[in-house]
Amino acid sequence: MKPVQRGTSLRAKQAARGPGRPLQDLNTHAAILDVAERLFARLGYVGTSLRMIADSAAVTQALITYYFGSKERLFEAVFKRRGLELAARRHALLDELLASHDRPSVEALVRAYVTPQFDLKKSGPGGLAFVRIQARLHNEPEEVAFRLRRDVYDEATKRYIKALGDALPGVSAADVNFRMMFMIGTYLYMISDVSRLDELSDGAFNTANQDEVLERMVQFLKGGICAPGTPGV
Amino acid sequence: MKPVQRGTSLRAKQAARGPGRPLQDLNTHAAILDVAERLFARLGYVGTSLRMIADSAAVTQALITYYFGSKERLFEAVFKRRGLELAARRHALLDELLASHDRPSVEALVRAYVTPQFDLKKSGPGGLAFVRIQARLHNEPEEVAFRLRRDVYDEATKRYIKALGDALPGVSAADVNFRMMFMIGTYLYMISDVSRLDELSDGAFNTANQDEVLERMVQFLKGGICAPGTPGV
Repeated sequence: MKPVQRGTSLRAKQAARGPGRPLQDLNTHAAILDVAERLFARLGYVGTSLRMIADSAAVTQALITYYFGSKERLFEAVFKRRGLELAARRHALLDELLASHDRPSVEALVRAYVTPQFDLKKSGPGGLAFVRIQARLHNEPEEVAFRLRRDVYDEATKRYIKALGDALPGVSAADVNFRMMFMIGTYLYMISDVSRLDELSDGAFNTANQDEVLERMVQFLKGGICAPGTPGV
Repeated sequence: MKPVQRGTSLRAKQAARGPGRPLQDLNTHAAILDVAERLFARLGYVGTSLRMIADSAAVTQALITYYFGSKERLFEAVFKRRGLELAARRHALLDELLASHDRPSVEALVRAYVTPQFDLKKSGPGGLAFVRIQARLHNEPEEVAFRLRRDVYDEATKRYIKALGDALPGVSAADVNFRMMFMIGTYLYMISDVSRLDELSDGAFNTANQDEVLERMVQFLKGGICAPGTPGV
């Protein structure tokens, strides 16, 4: 990921192009996405304005509108940039598992589903910002978040639900579907960096080591997903 | 929970008091809290302004400031109103369990920890709004959310961690603490009403029945929390 360029250099570039010339600077385009990603991650969709993004990227709001159309479309561009890559990675890992096993194990499926998130989080400040946007997506305005989430993630997630069901012949489809929700809730909370463990254990434990978080979480999710069917429902 | 009164009647009351007289209308105080709760739940802390709350409650911003001081203090008042009650309920349920069992089971502990949330959610629109505020609290600005969360919830949650550890002599303290985080992530996601299950199961399943959600979740959490210790960490 290219670091965001200093505002003065972007301004200088735009000035050098002169008025009326096509604005097609890929660096500027990427820089706007990077800045928007960081701000959306920190302040949420509602708390972030195009003016803040423009100021922080040292470009005009008109330029952002020229490239992206609106705040909603910019948010979509930010989310899809890494989200589609993440979904593709989930598909690829599942393809690998299905190619080498008739029925991949629950542990292998859980690991394949959540690992791309942790890899992204470890990849640098941009990946971390994206992961935070994703972790708070279900608290963003429905009209912005829900379609986006569906478009980016549903196809891969449905394939994992199917594979989990195949791995758990003794568990009802209802339980399998609910347990996928519980898994999503667990990993979204853990990737949102909540500092809660540190507080609640009086500093004895923390989530600084992402590999440790992943291992402990996979073990927990395996136990929960493989539990006997829920009685009485 | 008293429904929010219509703005005109509140305005009429204030006018009837006349200028300069002490404003101590408990109904107005509660109405402001109710309106703020609804707006914070829908729009988040950043997305909600005192002006919006004043307009929606049909009072002046000055009156809100008179009662609560600032948006941050109002948010705190909203959160503590039901949050402290919820924490007290958790304490009481744990006291009951400890009085009747030497070592309460993991299932009983999980159920006692999450049930007050679901009861609150079912209690009406106010309880539901509060639960949504709580579910998104870890995505609110740290300076607003973190101390509040600590003050309201830490004491009871630490008691549950201790009791879970006692119930799981074969599981390390680290796993027990991490698993409490996983449980919190799971139930926060499930109480935030995400409509995700409906989408991902193409309408075959949904979370409309809160008792069903609770039963399936308790079964999952029991399986995850009772899993053998995480290998290799």
